[in-house]
Amino acid sequence: MSKAVVVYSGGLDSRTVLQHAINEYDEVCALTVYYGQRHSKEIVSAMEVCKLLGVTHKVVSLDFMQDIVGNNALTGTIDVPEGHYESKSMKRTVVPNRNMIMMSIATAYAIGISAGVVMLGVHSGDHIIYPDCREVFFLGMKDNIELASEGKVTLACPYITYTKADIVKEGLAMGIDYSKSWTCYNGRLKSCGKCGSCIERLEAFELNNVKDPLEYEV
Amino acid sequence: MSKAVVVYSGGLDSRTVLQHAINEYDEVCALTVYYGQRHSKEIVSAMEVCKLLGVTHKVVSLDFMQDIVGNNALTGTIDVPEGHYESKSMKRTVVPNRNMIMMSIATAYAIGISAGVVMLGVHSGDHIIYPDCREVFFLGMKDNIELASEGKVTLACPYITYTKADIVKEGLAMGIDYSKSWTCYNGRLKSCGKCGSCIERLEAFELNNVKDPLEYEV
Repeated sequence: MSKAVVVYSGGLDSRTVLQHAINEYDEVCALTVYYGQRHSKEIVSAMEVCKLLGVTHKVVSLDFMQDIVGNNALTGTIDVPEGHYESKSMKRTVVPNRNMIMMSIATAYAIGISAGVVMLGVHSGDHIIYPDCREVFFLGMKDNIELASEGKVTLACPYITYTKADIVKEGLAMGIDYSKSWTCYNGRLKSCGKCGSCIERLEAFELNNVKDPLEYEV
Repeated sequence: MSKAVVVYSGGLDSRTVLQHAINEYDEVCALTVYYGQRHSKEIVSAMEVCKLLGVTHKVVSLDFMQDIVGNNALTGTIDVPEGHYESKSMKRTVVPNRNMIMMSIATAYAIGISAGVVMLGVHSGDHIIYPDCREVFFLGMKDNIELASEGKVTLACPYITYTKADIVKEGLAMGIDYSKSWTCYNGRLKSCGKCGSCIERLEAFELNNVKDPLEYEV
């Protein structure tokens, strides 16, 4: 029986990977990592979706992250930057080494439950500011995960060459209900529509000529 | 100012790396990772030593590890195997992907405090049963840590080709007081003298013609 572990934040990209995995593997287990995000809306969204889909879901807490990495716009008290994702201000949203940490814990989980693959929703839009989202990093980690698991687990980032618009296109084709996903860096009732994450998401829907089912403040 | 992060368990190997780092770097910060070990003697030992040495010390908890990786002789209820380290029974002491997880968190810490290196006390005696202690894995992780930190952090395992006896030799030459280190897999008042970890430690002192300063049950 084929089994996959999906690192699932509750956001749009990993929601799409989750569906992709459900369609490809006999059993899918989702892993959500709390690393001190300033709000829990993504995690709550992940819990709801996993319950709806009947997917095994583990939420693990790295609540020490802010203590060891210092202040940051995603985990701390620095303002969430507005504007486009590729701008310099987005550097504030880098949580150091986040993906390596998530991959390494997901690999332990995969070894523990005899799953053959760990999947992440990294995409090409992340490459510029996040060094741990680049293809060269992914390829290296794939090798390391295979070494650490003695070939039992591999790493897959099926959307690493996709734009976010490509991901939305694929997700819509798979029938995903994106009203149950959370992308905004702020955790208010509605999405802000102004942070890099919202802007990128709105653009991705627009490029698909589809209205984003989430409600926005602007 | 040169700064290092040492992954320090409270055991003999990482105690030696810690001293090595103190001798080589302007500032050393120790990181201890709790991953559900069945006893806390190593961690308490690490705390005491860091206090004595005046080294900044962070202890982080991955208390979810047993939940995600299942039962294990180090974290769970399976008996700690007795006998030599290289025997098959020692497989029970493998905590899946432990080193990758520790390296990845230590890298985040290093980025956070602008340290240029993460150091671990991996040695050649671990290579047979622990895939994440082998040199090829270390070299791969070194590359990936450099990628993830955009060249700001590297990985060093100065004892990766050493035997445990070589480490003890180096540590004694540096004047380390090994009475303040804990190696035994069991967490009783005295070290058991029978688990793989005790046997290996005793052998290492014997090969140096030095009496281990710890007290043993046998």
